[in-house]
Amino acid sequence: MEDLKKYVNKQITVSGFAEKIRNLQWVQFIVIRSEGKRLQITIEKSDEKNSKLINIVNNLTQESTIKVTGILKENEHVKMGGMELIPSKIEVTNLSQDSLPINITNKDAALIDTRMDNRFLDLRNDYNYYIFKIQSEFVRAMRQYLYDNGFTEIHTPKLIGAASESGSEVFKVDYFGQKAYLAQSPQFYKQMAIAAGYEKVFEVAPAFRAENSNTNRHATEFTSFDLEFANINSYEDVMDFEEELIVSGLKAVKEKYGDLIKELYGVDVVIPKRPFPRIKLQDLYNELHQRYGYKIPSHDVGDMNSETEKLTSRYALEKYNHEFIFVTDFSKAKRPFYHMRKDDVPQGYDLIWKGTEITTGAQREHRYDVLEKQAEEKKLGDDIKFYKNFFKYGCPPHGGFGLGIDRLTMLLLGLPSLKETMFIFRGPNRITP
Amino acid sequence: MEDLKKYVNKQITVSGFAEKIRNLQWVQFIVIRSEGKRLQITIEKSDEKNSKLINIVNNLTQESTIKVTGILKENEHVKMGGMELIPSKIEVTNLSQDSLPINITNKDAALIDTRMDNRFLDLRNDYNYYIFKIQSEFVRAMRQYLYDNGFTEIHTPKLIGAASESGSEVFKVDYFGQKAYLAQSPQFYKQMAIAAGYEKVFEVAPAFRAENSNTNRHATEFTSFDLEFANINSYEDVMDFEEELIVSGLKAVKEKYGDLIKELYGVDVVIPKRPFPRIKLQDLYNELHQRYGYKIPSHDVGDMNSETEKLTSRYALEKYNHEFIFVTDFSKAKRPFYHMRKDDVPQGYDLIWKGTEITTGAQREHRYDVLEKQAEEKKLGDDIKFYKNFFKYGCPPHGGFGLGIDRLTMLLLGLPSLKETMFIFRGPNRITP
Repeated sequence: MEDLKKYVNKQITVSGFAEKIRNLQWVQFIVIRSEGKRLQITIEKSDEKNSKLINIVNNLTQESTIKVTGILKENEHVKMGGMELIPSKIEVTNLSQDSLPINITNKDAALIDTRMDNRFLDLRNDYNYYIFKIQSEFVRAMRQYLYDNGFTEIHTPKLIGAASESGSEVFKVDYFGQKAYLAQSPQFYKQMAIAAGYEKVFEVAPAFRAENSNTNRHATEFTSFDLEFANINSYEDVMDFEEELIVSGLKAVKEKYGDLIKELYGVDVVIPKRPFPRIKLQDLYNELHQRYGYKIPSHDVGDMNSETEKLTSRYALEKYNHEFIFVTDFSKAKRPFYHMRKDDVPQGYDLIWKGTEITTGAQREHRYDVLEKQAEEKKLGDDIKFYKNFFKYGCPPHGGFGLGIDRLTMLLLGLPSLKETMFIFRGPNRITP
Repeated sequence: MEDLKKYVNKQITVSGFAEKIRNLQWVQFIVIRSEGKRLQITIEKSDEKNSKLINIVNNLTQESTIKVTGILKENEHVKMGGMELIPSKIEVTNLSQDSLPINITNKDAALIDTRMDNRFLDLRNDYNYYIFKIQSEFVRAMRQYLYDNGFTEIHTPKLIGAASESGSEVFKVDYFGQKAYLAQSPQFYKQMAIAAGYEKVFEVAPAFRAENSNTNRHATEFTSFDLEFANINSYEDVMDFEEELIVSGLKAVKEKYGDLIKELYGVDVVIPKRPFPRIKLQDLYNELHQRYGYKIPSHDVGDMNSETEKLTSRYALEKYNHEFIFVTDFSKAKRPFYHMRKDDVPQGYDLIWKGTEITTGAQREHRYDVLEKQAEEKKLGDDIKFYKNFFKYGCPPHGGFGLGIDRLTMLLLGLPSLKETMFIFRGPNRITP
């Protein structure tokens, strides 16, 4: 139902949901909804030719799907686009049962769990519906940016033989009597691609975390936008690239959905200025202490926690008028063994947006002997031997990062939880529908 | 290293693998390889300025990664592009250990299992390397076709609470003490999107099959290119769309890699004529019997098997000079309950390419009462209740299909097995690396 204007006074066929049905004394109205767009269908009862149509509408239920053929007319009295469809044929393709289990006209009418149980109806509300149109456009634009920069898409295994990276919080799978695990991230395999000679790779795929925590920003399964590229000089190159990527995504979203995002979610899509502000963790601690009297708890020293992240964004807004800020120079104790270090400082960063961490990125350690030492220090054993091998026979300097697109969407639209921005949410207590 | 010509007589820096190192009496040569492209580096030993470089090359091992700065010169005696790099600086970014576990210059030098164990080296051979460049382009182009046609990307859960579709051959996951399963396909969730009002959706994501079979065209995990769209008139619309999609993908591949595919794999990329031939299963049986004396085994009647598929392609080539052929009118006993039927005939198809089935597509049954009957007939119980609900409150007619991109790549390039066309293969006996 895009651009209907050009079909005025012509016969068209539209399909969609019968969102509203009004049966008045002299006239019947249907509002048909298709992909978030709406059109009024008007049936004059006095017209004898309409007897069959009138009968159909008499029996029509809200949210039934219909296919309507008729002449599109301009009518300045019609609020919806100043047009109405005068039908000659209405086909009911699926008659809805009479009362819906949730109220789809008011997105807040049902509790989140009831909404998730009825997600196929919950998403019919524009507010929820457009989340995934916008997410799709965001990802499309970022992927396009990667193609434009010569990236190759890879598809790495989600079933893995050894618990990767952290070794904890992985789902176990019964693999023909053997143990297998679900990949927490494509990290090792992205790097394998680099060792194999693919200089720029990306993947958009599910990642799995068996964390039994119920926060608004964690899920047991989420979609990870991951990339890795070779021949960098330092992790500054990785930050630069991430800036460009995010800007290109936000530009596309603003262009296509900026007005709608303002209208539906009350959010201005801000195209961030480059470069994004960058600050070392210790300097950040000092700033947050001076400005807000905040002191990082001792067990989090060398790292950030959710409160630190919130204050960091406050600081970035106040000092730089910027929604984004990179934090660097974390403690090596708080970073994975595969981050390169220089003078014992991990060559990586977190990127904070609107009070929440959206990426951990880094230059990776590509020197076999150094990597081995760092792995030993973290007491990582035989499970990562296959990974260490990638660096024995030539591997260029490289770096990369990952972005959770569900979290990104949550922050973009100012939504309270991943439960809103995952098509189907998965958490410790939620494995359906 | 694309388009080096424009840098002739200029200083450039190139990074890559030292594929060949020749140390002669008066001169040293390195062939550096970057993303499948090659450049000769030439160091004259008589030049005193080169003493440091000569020493580096003396200690350089094959497949080390290097970063070289120098002046690019034209030299008609150099086979590789008629150019050579006269270096002023060589940096060894990763020194390879002396002997590689597999011979990467001859793709057939090692057995497939040894190759898979050393996949990060195996992929350095051009023959293997380009498979994934080509696959990436194929998928990019098909995805672009979907965007151009207004499709929305969705990300559906791979962790599911009930064994979907067939009920058999699913991987079990320990989900916080509960049982969960890995999704065999996004089928139910694609259709949920349709019920939610997304009229055209797609997903490219892993799918999991716990089949303990070791054929050349099965894997326990593969990448599925899935789509679903609403408001179709019949499954003919689905076939038409799949034709367009495949043609758009093949056109892009041929344009970018056609010559290289011919050279490396000996395959002509044929852009198929539309419409693809279409034949009913019973007519196909008759043709195969008349032409080749083939009779389908009784337990496969109403369906195809791998021999039928091979002969079907032979028939399509002989009769239509076409690489593709749609087969329709399968037996309802051999098709899933959610395929729409008309006069008891499933409204779906298989698409055969080069002797192998690449898609099952169909119009889906969107009428709740009919769907329920068909589910009962297949003895499907409470596990699919959530799915049947999608059709209770309005759902337009719709259809779709899925394509395994690994299999598609295998057929495109004429490769013998999925083990070649999966970045990392997963089978019953293969869960590493």
